[in-house]
Amino acid sequence: MSGANIAVVGATGAVGRVVLSILEERGFPVERARLLASSRSAGTKLPFMGDEVVVEEATPDAFEGADIVFFSAGGGTSKSLAPEAAKRGAVVVDKSSAWRMDPAVPLVIPEVNAGDIDEHSGIISSPNCSTIVMLMALAPLHRANPIRRVIVDTYQSASGAGAKGVDELYRQTHAMLDDRAAEASTFPYPLAFNVLPHVEEFTDDGYTTEETKMENETRKIMHLPDLPVSATCVRVPVPVSHSEAVHIEFEHVMSPEEARDVLSEFPGVRVIDDVAAKGYPLAGFAAGKDDVFVGRIRTDRALTNGLSLWTVGDNLRKGAALNAVQIAEELLERRLAGNGNGR
Amino acid sequence: MSGANIAVVGATGAVGRVVLSILEERGFPVERARLLASSRSAGTKLPFMGDEVVVEEATPDAFEGADIVFFSAGGGTSKSLAPEAAKRGAVVVDKSSAWRMDPAVPLVIPEVNAGDIDEHSGIISSPNCSTIVMLMALAPLHRANPIRRVIVDTYQSASGAGAKGVDELYRQTHAMLDDRAAEASTFPYPLAFNVLPHVEEFTDDGYTTEETKMENETRKIMHLPDLPVSATCVRVPVPVSHSEAVHIEFEHVMSPEEARDVLSEFPGVRVIDDVAAKGYPLAGFAAGKDDVFVGRIRTDRALTNGLSLWTVGDNLRKGAALNAVQIAEELLERRLAGNGNGR
Repeated sequence: MSGANIAVVGATGAVGRVVLSILEERGFPVERARLLASSRSAGTKLPFMGDEVVVEEATPDAFEGADIVFFSAGGGTSKSLAPEAAKRGAVVVDKSSAWRMDPAVPLVIPEVNAGDIDEHSGIISSPNCSTIVMLMALAPLHRANPIRRVIVDTYQSASGAGAKGVDELYRQTHAMLDDRAAEASTFPYPLAFNVLPHVEEFTDDGYTTEETKMENETRKIMHLPDLPVSATCVRVPVPVSHSEAVHIEFEHVMSPEEARDVLSEFPGVRVIDDVAAKGYPLAGFAAGKDDVFVGRIRTDRALTNGLSLWTVGDNLRKGAALNAVQIAEELLERRLAGNGNGR
Repeated sequence: MSGANIAVVGATGAVGRVVLSILEERGFPVERARLLASSRSAGTKLPFMGDEVVVEEATPDAFEGADIVFFSAGGGTSKSLAPEAAKRGAVVVDKSSAWRMDPAVPLVIPEVNAGDIDEHSGIISSPNCSTIVMLMALAPLHRANPIRRVIVDTYQSASGAGAKGVDELYRQTHAMLDDRAAEASTFPYPLAFNVLPHVEEFTDDGYTTEETKMENETRKIMHLPDLPVSATCVRVPVPVSHSEAVHIEFEHVMSPEEARDVLSEFPGVRVIDDVAAKGYPLAGFAAGKDDVFVGRIRTDRALTNGLSLWTVGDNLRKGAALNAVQIAEELLERRLAGNGNGR
């Protein structure tokens, strides 16, 4: 097999474009690629792997012959079209929240729970961006010392709301510097020079869907259905990268040194933790990079056997597109291994 | 007694100027005012209560005859000059961190622990801005239901580093919008479009002095020397107002409704908590206001008998200048009451 027939739904969006560039960067073995989007974006031409590819409308028939279909459109599109792709024999790698909590759908961060991929029945979900940035730090620590409780407060970037979120942040910033009123449409209030404790939608329990996602997805991915997790998700005026303050209670005492050692050995994580030299992860530095960066590792003074840490990752790359491509790579390896083709 | 002889040390600084305007706004009974600063700023003229007052150099002799001296200069100035003022019979209200943890110095938020004022021996400290914004929410809740554990992550504004911090944020923002390099001198790295998990200085335990202040000051003000408190202090690109995500464990279960009722009745706190109508506290809204705003009150899903909340306050007003002026008002009332002059 020389390569896979792939399709990308939402190819013209913020995450979709990053999916395309990551497929190129990593030399993903593509036999044939179809770039799909809404009828509104159909006809757009996008450069991909040396060709210029015309974007087609995402319809059920467009999935014929596809091996792997990346969905980076909204939840509604995934809900209606992912089963159509699966029905036609493709494996869907879905970035939306539509299927994540479905018991039949594996929710996967390859470094954390690649084995769950084997349980798929046509659809595999990639987690919420904030969940991924946190779990890249929690998972290796949990293997070394079982986690009993997690509290997290996030500092999420405008690009979590797509390219239009970043545009709005810059537009508002220009307006406020010019003493004009900052208008908000993507965000509930002006985000420029402000902080919004409101990401996604509120539900009756006073939490947002983003917060509940972080909590539920963490339990599912870590196979800890009863883990107590509490999240406050906050939007900050940063274009790219989510930062998170995480407080963790462990079964046993864990020193910051041991945590640093464990995290340093985990693929996809880079420890930046030399505070005397002002070494800690920064949103501006993490933007455009593949790793999740962890620092400020210290004993938590409120939790039993606790550690506090600061984790930062590019929400468009490891938080979205890169993780989806890694799932597809893992899928190909497993399929090849399963077919006895070896490697 | 028609009024007090006051002096303001650091009158030309960000907090000092707000002290002057709050004294005016509240009609503080001033008999005579001396505005003091470093020799560098001496000679500056500042408008105050209808006069133009020439700023003098802050020397020990400048405190002769003063009843109340507000210190809003750095810790070094307070360390050396506050005892000189106290020695000359004045009561010092100090905004710096120099004296806060001294057992002989009351650390006071008037709404929370006004009674501690009576224990002073010439110096009273006003707490760290982040501590005040948190304790205005914690203190009334603790009276209703003892607090057992607190975890807080902050979203602190540039003005916490003084007027030069705000200037630097705007300068960096302009530079980045123009694709020029953003230079940092007040902050360790560019703050514009970024998030810095670093406020003040690091110590050997991996915490910053700001984080340790929040923890120790909370224990002292609440008279809970063993309360477990864990803080992560983070600078965000906001000019004014500190926001904080707070997670609280109580002795007994407490419903969000009960917490809202308790907080609504506490002077100086305003509850904004109607998420269905996008009602929650915002940094941009709190700037320039006296109240501390509390919202996003909900059951914490990780702590036993826990609540999560979001608290926001103007760090220059209630977080600094207003609290200092309120301490002075409380001092005058108590002195008058103690003298049998009544009210």
